[in-house]
Amino acid sequence: MSLRAASPSGRGAPLYERVAENIAHLVETGTFRPGDRIPSVRQLSQQKRVSVTTVLQAYYLLEDQGLIEARPQSGYYVRTQLPSGLPEPEISSPEPDPSQVSIHELTMMVLRDAENPNLAQFGTAVPNPELVPTRKLNSIMASLARHNEPRSNQYVFPPGCEALRVQIAQRAVNAGCSLSPNDIVITSGCIEAIDLCLRAVCHRGDTVAIESPMYFGILQLMESLGVQALEIPTHPREGISLEALRFAVEHTPVKACLVVPNFNNPLGSCMPDEKKKELVELLARYDLPLIENDISGELYHSGKRPIVSKAYDRKGLVMLCSSFSKEIAPGYRVGWVAPGRLKPTVEWLKFTANIATATLPQLAIAGFLESGGYDHHLRHIRRVYARYVAQMSLAIMRHFPKETRITRPTGGFVLWVQLPEKVDSLVLYRQALKAGITLTPGYIFSATNQYRNFIRLNAAFWSAEAERAIERLGEIIKEIA
Amino acid sequence: MSLRAASPSGRGAPLYERVAENIAHLVETGTFRPGDRIPSVRQLSQQKRVSVTTVLQAYYLLEDQGLIEARPQSGYYVRTQLPSGLPEPEISSPEPDPSQVSIHELTMMVLRDAENPNLAQFGTAVPNPELVPTRKLNSIMASLARHNEPRSNQYVFPPGCEALRVQIAQRAVNAGCSLSPNDIVITSGCIEAIDLCLRAVCHRGDTVAIESPMYFGILQLMESLGVQALEIPTHPREGISLEALRFAVEHTPVKACLVVPNFNNPLGSCMPDEKKKELVELLARYDLPLIENDISGELYHSGKRPIVSKAYDRKGLVMLCSSFSKEIAPGYRVGWVAPGRLKPTVEWLKFTANIATATLPQLAIAGFLESGGYDHHLRHIRRVYARYVAQMSLAIMRHFPKETRITRPTGGFVLWVQLPEKVDSLVLYRQALKAGITLTPGYIFSATNQYRNFIRLNAAFWSAEAERAIERLGEIIKEIA
Repeated sequence: MSLRAASPSGRGAPLYERVAENIAHLVETGTFRPGDRIPSVRQLSQQKRVSVTTVLQAYYLLEDQGLIEARPQSGYYVRTQLPSGLPEPEISSPEPDPSQVSIHELTMMVLRDAENPNLAQFGTAVPNPELVPTRKLNSIMASLARHNEPRSNQYVFPPGCEALRVQIAQRAVNAGCSLSPNDIVITSGCIEAIDLCLRAVCHRGDTVAIESPMYFGILQLMESLGVQALEIPTHPREGISLEALRFAVEHTPVKACLVVPNFNNPLGSCMPDEKKKELVELLARYDLPLIENDISGELYHSGKRPIVSKAYDRKGLVMLCSSFSKEIAPGYRVGWVAPGRLKPTVEWLKFTANIATATLPQLAIAGFLESGGYDHHLRHIRRVYARYVAQMSLAIMRHFPKETRITRPTGGFVLWVQLPEKVDSLVLYRQALKAGITLTPGYIFSATNQYRNFIRLNAAFWSAEAERAIERLGEIIKEIA
Repeated sequence: MSLRAASPSGRGAPLYERVAENIAHLVETGTFRPGDRIPSVRQLSQQKRVSVTTVLQAYYLLEDQGLIEARPQSGYYVRTQLPSGLPEPEISSPEPDPSQVSIHELTMMVLRDAENPNLAQFGTAVPNPELVPTRKLNSIMASLARHNEPRSNQYVFPPGCEALRVQIAQRAVNAGCSLSPNDIVITSGCIEAIDLCLRAVCHRGDTVAIESPMYFGILQLMESLGVQALEIPTHPREGISLEALRFAVEHTPVKACLVVPNFNNPLGSCMPDEKKKELVELLARYDLPLIENDISGELYHSGKRPIVSKAYDRKGLVMLCSSFSKEIAPGYRVGWVAPGRLKPTVEWLKFTANIATATLPQLAIAGFLESGGYDHHLRHIRRVYARYVAQMSLAIMRHFPKETRITRPTGGFVLWVQLPEKVDSLVLYRQALKAGITLTPGYIFSATNQYRNFIRLNAAFWSAEAERAIERLGEIIKEIA
């Protein structure tokens, strides 16, 4: 949309017109918005190496066009009442053919959907904002910000904030793990922890064995690092097949194994303890690192906290990664890794990647954990998410075609749904979007396009409205199938 | 240091002794500290798969040893009065031979020095905490944290917080640059911006041309990515040699060029505008990306803000990186990049690396910039840093051997010092540490060990005390030389 009546000035136009053109462009693209002050005549003349007269002529032109106004003693501002009679937006460009959408674009589209308040949010696996203790956490943050300067604005170099590492080590006991604060490196979320581990154990061109399906963020991280994913068959309730993994490590030059033993996303699978032990022992025989993602380990639906594979680690080969994003603080971007014997490498890689994680978010989470309300909060959200997952499962059974299959997760808040063979999840994604519903197409949970007729649904936002959206989704699926 | 009288229990010891051993270990390594509650008998019995009796026996043993105490109705706690007569710490291990210290270790040592309040801080190039507006920034943060939930605790997916991108685009006008908010991707600091750019333009094994000397963080980032650094001669006042760079791109398969045109760290060099234009045009002829690090661009000592090379970018090849770490908010870890035509790739790489930058720090910096005090603050710190750099230069001239050479930076707050040939900067670093002074040895500013007898000194903490430290440093240098 152009805000100017005149057509863009070419190279032949007078200098002041080109200067005016440039300012108008910055207004159009949102750099200066209605009510913002634009650069002073003197500033612009210096920066553009043009005379004050030229800038003044340019500003007079923009005033004439109704785009800016002079305010006495103050400078030039973008007018808040923009001229009427603006040209209408151009007709939207039609959707590209499904096959032309890259996995990257598709992922970025699904992420953007998450910021659209008008959609039923079954897409990204973000927690329900009403089920994270934002008020309490922010209040701790506010108090720290008021009383902890200047420490709050200094770097906390790797391994990161000690008070937080102490809390993490204490909680690890519940997961069957003896960690000291010195075993832990703070990261900017769990995915950064996995990034650092992958970079510590392999290079571009190397192969890492993973569960399949696998959370798309990890697949794309691997793609960005040039690391090959060897997808291992995975049972929807008991996790990665050890038989297949054994075969793989015996026949392929695998550099590491990356697994989500507790509540794989999207499957919700949870490996039995004995199987975790076997997994660790199998890899230890080949001296292969195990990157263990335990991001949802606290979100078990009943019983007690499943232990982590790291509990069986005798050789320092298990690199345990997690964060606080699912339970309390997605927007704080604080995660951690206990990298075993590769800790010095991971610590150094953290420094090279972004020097440090932001200080105040680390202090706030440490303060929250110290305050002791975390276990109470966890008990509450485990019950709620268990109920939401059950209710969404029932609604799917009621409204989707009867050939549909769904997982039976014992933790976390996502469901993995296998639709009738004929349903292309990308077509469904598009049709659903038009009906105000976002979901994640199965395509992006595999590096080899395995899950064409699968979708992942996030149950964290369950409500009567969400139930109606599931009903509508069922109708759309039946139309496509 | 062992907190227990008994020697560690072996495999043959009774089970309860092994359980006690494990808890004692967690106390020794700081997971549980004096006054902390340790896991309840029931919890530990579940997690360790041992009987309640075994855990009770273990806890009785630890009580007997004076390590823990029972508090009625509450559980077991680590005693705050630890038993007396503890064994003394072991004698410290002697320093390894200089040649055995890796560049990684040396870097991590210099970083750790920065957290030691007893040292004269000439080492890392962090800003003086008294010259960042922490109080104001934290107060904005506190207010946001109190009033902006739940938005403050949700992901802001790439490209990041729009209000902040608007502010960055507006300020770019002063650097001679027309950017729209949509041209910008928010990152976790400037080094992450550079990381994403490097990953967007090259792979392991590729070569990137850089200035020499170069900030060690970037060298180590390149090492971690497996990217070769081609070091180009660089003038201490006018920056990278274009003649040498031209030769390099004509004769070497260079994939990109990475330059700090405004106030290179450690040189303080500033390329003249005409030279920036030539640089951009030279690289554009070969269609080579220019990664431009402008992290210190606002810290000019006099005159007006130097423009950025990006101002001359016609082909979208210049990837402009910066942050707020030097001027206002090191601990907030917020930076940005305007990646030109590779923006979609950089945005996607940001998602794969850590999903998003923390939300509240972005909002707080946007709020600070909107509030309008930034320019006033900058005018103040520019004057102070200019004075500190001048005063440190004078002190060096007074106290160092007369063969010493120092840079004459026109911006930033570091000095690059060439010492007499005989001085090994690593030996000096160690001797200085013993005298309570930290500095950065020249070794780590080159991938090829070029700067054995150079050091970088940070002038940001200048004071009468710092002057005495410079005098002492001069004495140490004369002893070594």
